[in-house]
Order: sequence, then structure tokens, then C-alpha cells
Amino acid sequence: MSRFPSLTELGSSLHNLPAGSGEAAAMAAARQRTLTKPPGSLGRLEDIAIWMARWRDTERPEIRRCQVLVFAGSHGIAARGVSAFPAEVTAQMVANFEAGGAAINQLARVAGAELKVVALEVERPTADFTVEAALSEAEFLAAVNAGYGAVTADADLICLGEMGIGNTTAAAAVAAGLFGGTGADWVGRGTGVDDAGLGRKAAVVDEALRTHAAALTDPVEVLRRLGGRELAAMFGAALAARHGKIPVLLDGFVSTAAVAPLAVAARDGLAHCQAAHRSAEAGHARLLEKLGFSPLLALDMRLGEASGACAAVGIVRAALACHNGMATFADAGVSEE
Amino acid sequence: MSRFPSLTELGSSLHNLPAGSGEAAAMAAARQRTLTKPPGSLGRLEDIAIWMARWRDTERPEIRRCQVLVFAGSHGIAARGVSAFPAEVTAQMVANFEAGGAAINQLARVAGAELKVVALEVERPTADFTVEAALSEAEFLAAVNAGYGAVTADADLICLGEMGIGNTTAAAAVAAGLFGGTGADWVGRGTGVDDAGLGRKAAVVDEALRTHAAALTDPVEVLRRLGGRELAAMFGAALAARHGKIPVLLDGFVSTAAVAPLAVAARDGLAHCQAAHRSAEAGHARLLEKLGFSPLLALDMRLGEASGACAAVGIVRAALACHNGMATFADAGVSEE
Repeated sequence: MSRFPSLTELGSSLHNLPAGSGEAAAMAAARQRTLTKPPGSLGRLEDIAIWMARWRDTERPEIRRCQVLVFAGSHGIAARGVSAFPAEVTAQMVANFEAGGAAINQLARVAGAELKVVALEVERPTADFTVEAALSEAEFLAAVNAGYGAVTADADLICLGEMGIGNTTAAAAVAAGLFGGTGADWVGRGTGVDDAGLGRKAAVVDEALRTHAAALTDPVEVLRRLGGRELAAMFGAALAARHGKIPVLLDGFVSTAAVAPLAVAARDGLAHCQAAHRSAEAGHARLLEKLGFSPLLALDMRLGEASGACAAVGIVRAALACHNGMATFADAGVSEE
Repeated sequence: MSRFPSLTELGSSLHNLPAGSGEAAAMAAARQRTLTKPPGSLGRLEDIAIWMARWRDTERPEIRRCQVLVFAGSHGIAARGVSAFPAEVTAQMVANFEAGGAAINQLARVAGAELKVVALEVERPTADFTVEAALSEAEFLAAVNAGYGAVTADADLICLGEMGIGNTTAAAAVAAGLFGGTGADWVGRGTGVDDAGLGRKAAVVDEALRTHAAALTDPVEVLRRLGGRELAAMFGAALAARHGKIPVLLDGFVSTAAVAPLAVAARDGLAHCQAAHRSAEAGHARLLEKLGFSPLLALDMRLGEASGACAAVGIVRAALACHNGMATFADAGVSEE
């Protein structure tokens, strides 16, 4: 049986999210204060170590297994001229992932992470969401469950990413549906559309917001109607990670938009997630601000594929290496302030 | 014989800095355009790969050997109450480096880098530079030569960092000496001084600027008079790296101030360097702006020890892994725009 046989089960699980361990976080914070460095001088590396401790429920968390999940899906609105690339690139890039030739293959290797690519009915695009819901309830649940099931229970860290020609338009629609604003507020150049393409993206989002206006109060409905299979799967994977208390590194605009319904549904719904980077895609900075995320990296990346998330794994490894491996003032005989 | 027997030899080498390879950089940029991603979508990872190609003089640069150099020195002005920690911590931390207990030991391991710690007469502090030059010409040259000699000729990437209680005050003095402004413009809290300590730091820098006012037109003299042994050594190491065409990741405020005379002496004197991060130390952002650097990371780190530089090595590795390992559009059969 699927994890979520209906939207009702899915909805109620959002109101019962497990919390992290305040005790483990407090122990990790206390440990940081004993290490041979001025207090706070490792900056966000200290915060990351404490965050990992909270979710892994141990004073000294480790990354034994890091999983990179890349979900791929096809979009009906790709036919509306919202991308610089043709729709068939989604399937071609899935083949490239499987052959090891994409950026994420190289980045996962450098990060010491396992890459899992999940193609979600790539030959069957979603419906054009300017006219009707992108996914039926059954299609949406299938994608959420696929994402939920892709998470490995013994992972210590998960990177979430995607591939899907047209999906920055879907992400803009989801963000606007959740947080308000017009298409123009949320769309960007994606893979590199020109000004006319940018105008088409904004118009498509505005049309969609009108079509689905009555349903935008329910964050899960926003995702079903305006998202796509890979967005639904990332949402499911983030939910599985929360249930498994596995910390998550979000990638760019699309992955952040996909999981944003968790934050709308539950106040601390994304507490187990970090924004790995701030993408160059225009809407991402705005979305990160709405969600209260401060990204770890800002390298003008805008590729998707979990590439930004994966680039930040080394920062998490660095944080934990310091946290677990450094001597204390007492051990090293170093004078304190 | 030392590399630079006199300031004259040192000065003339600054006017004969080798350039990188424009041809290798152009080939690397052309390669980037063929890889299976939207053009420019890897952002600064693309720039880093091209920068590495320029300095390693090859279309496909690799990091076979990464060297982390940490220089330690003691400062006469530490006696003026400019640090939250006592002066003996410099020697204690050198022992901690050697025992493997410091942050940089853990970070170097994660980065796959070799750590070399060079203690420069730590038991003999520099002179109080509010009164006289911090280092005599002989002392300065000895430190520059020690730094120059510490660089391994077959390194592909070098991280430069330091340890020295009192040295953010020296760095502030060097920055003010090179770029103008008052002590208050350049000092920060270092390891964590209170407001009174911050006031003392600013006053010490202002005194030093008055004492050495007549000598501030020569950037090397600024470093000799206002710096310290570890700053002189980082300057020497950056110069050796330039001569060996080895790219350099600068760490925080102190390492950036130490190598800044290269940029003042020669327009592209720091073209082989990247700012690995923007430290939380107040003067660093200002100094990076003066030098035209855009830091790779901004994680509120302020430890020194090359910790920020080392945290960025993974970003360089990620950049090169994509550059060297990705399939081209033609190879992968992916449609272009």
C-alpha cells in the first residue's frame, strides 16, 4: 500500500510532524563552546553542526550516507514556449544522468554522495495548468508517494533536486499560489529565455492563478494544481525525511517551491531543511526570504539537478569534521579568554 | 641563498610577474559552452574552472596536490590589549596544529589537502609598530623568504592562512596604510574584543599611521613596518605561487591584507588569487571591495588558520569535476537551445 492512499491521509500527516531533539542540539552547542577557537568564530559551520545534531538526535552527528535524489517530470505548459530548450531535453537529460555525464554526476562524486534519479512518467506531461489542474489527485499522490519512497531510511543527509523543462514556470506558479504576487514577481529566465519568453512565463502564471483562484488556500492543492510530478515527489521526499529525522539540503527555486507547502501547512515544517544555495533564478531570493532561509552558498548557479545542494555537502562535512574532531581548550592546554 | 637577499631584489620581482595563459583560459571557456547544461548555469563554478585553466596552463586543470600553508607569528602590539586572548595562545595553537586538534586540521582533511604549519620565531614578537617598524629589513626578508620557500612547486592549489594573537590589528594597519582611512575604518572585533578593546585597536592603528606616515607610498614598506612575520610570509608565499603559476585561495582579513601589497605594486598582482570567503571581521568586506574580489563563501567565519580558504577547496574541486567530467551536448545526444 502506498504511504498516502488519499489526500486526507497526506493532509493529516502534515499536522503531526516530528520535532528534532532540543537536548542533542543543546549538547552540541555546549560542545562547540569548549573547542579550541574563539566562541562563534566558525560562524555558520557551528550552526550547521548543531542543526545536524538536532535532527540526527546525537551530540556528534556524522554523515555515513548522503543521498542525492533527482526527480524528473514533464510539463504540459512546456508547449507554451516557456523554456529556451525543447521538451524532449527532459528525457535526454535523464539518459545523461544515467550515463554519468551530467553536472550532478560529477558533483555527487565529489560530495561522496549516492545519486538516485527517479524519472516520473517523463513521456506523459502534466496537463496545461492554465486550463485545469496539472495533476489529478491519483497522479499527484503517485508522485508524492514515489518521492516518499525514494528516501533511504539510513541516510544522514539528503539533497533534493529536479529536472523538467518548463518547471521554473511551475515553481513560479506554486510560489505565487502560496505567497501571493503576480507572475512577473516570480518568473525568471530559467534555462535562458529571452524577454519574450519571460513575458510568456508571467502570462502563463497569471492565467493559472485566475483558473485556480478558489483553491489557493490549501497549500497541498496549490502544489497539485500548479506543480508537476517532480515537484510533488520532492515534497514527498521532504516529508519522508522529516518523518525519518533526516536533514535535507534544498537546491534552487524549483525544489524550494516544491517543499514550501510544508512551511505553509506547519509553522516549523521546513526546520529539517537548509537552503543550500541562492540560485540566480530571480524568484529564488524572494522565496527564500518568505521562508526565512539564509542560503549557505550564493555562486550564481541556476542549473537545478540538485547541483547547488550537492555543492554545499562539503560545507556540512566541514562543519561536522570541526565539531567532532577538534580538541577542547582543556585537552589542548590552550588558554581561554 | 635566500630567494630575495634584499628589498631591491624583492621590489624588482614585483614588476615582473608572470601572466596566466589566455589560450588555456579560452580553450576552457569554449569547453564550458559544449557541456550538457544551459550556458552559464553553473555560475561561478564555470569561472573557477576557467581561472584554474589560465594559471595551470591547461584546458582541463586538476587538483592533484593542494597545499594549506598556515604561518604563525607574534606581535609586539599584543601587549597593548588589542586581543581577547593572551599572547601565549599563538604558541599554544601552533602546538594544537601540530597535534591535529585545531579546526584547520579537520578542514584540511575534508578538503583532501596537505597542511604545513610554519611557526616564525613565535617566541620573538615584532616591535611595537606604533613606535618603530614591526620588522627590520633583515627580519622582514627572512619571513618573506620563509613564506616563499614554503610553497611546494608541484602544488595545483594553495590555501593561505595564519595564526597570531594581535594580527587583526596589524592587518587593519596594513590595510589603512595601503588604502587610506582611519583605524576605526578598518578594525574589528578579531577573536572577540569588547568595545574598549575595539577602541584600543583603532587608537593603535592611528598611532602607527602617524609614526610611519612618510613611508606609506611603498606597499612593501607598509607591510614591513605595520605587518608581522606571518603576514610577510603569506606575501612571500603568494609571490612564490605567482612565479609557479599556482592558484591561491586567500583566507580572511589578515591573509588578504598580507597579500594586498602585490595588487598595489602591480595592477593584476592578485590575478592568481581568489577570495575564498568573506570573513565576519569588519574590515574584510571593505578590503575585498578595494581589491575587486567577490568572495566564494560568506559563512560568518572569523577564525583565520586558513579555515575559510580550506572550506572553499571543495567548491574548486566541484568546479573542476564538472569541467572535466561532464558530457558534451554532442556526446550525450542532448538537444541544444
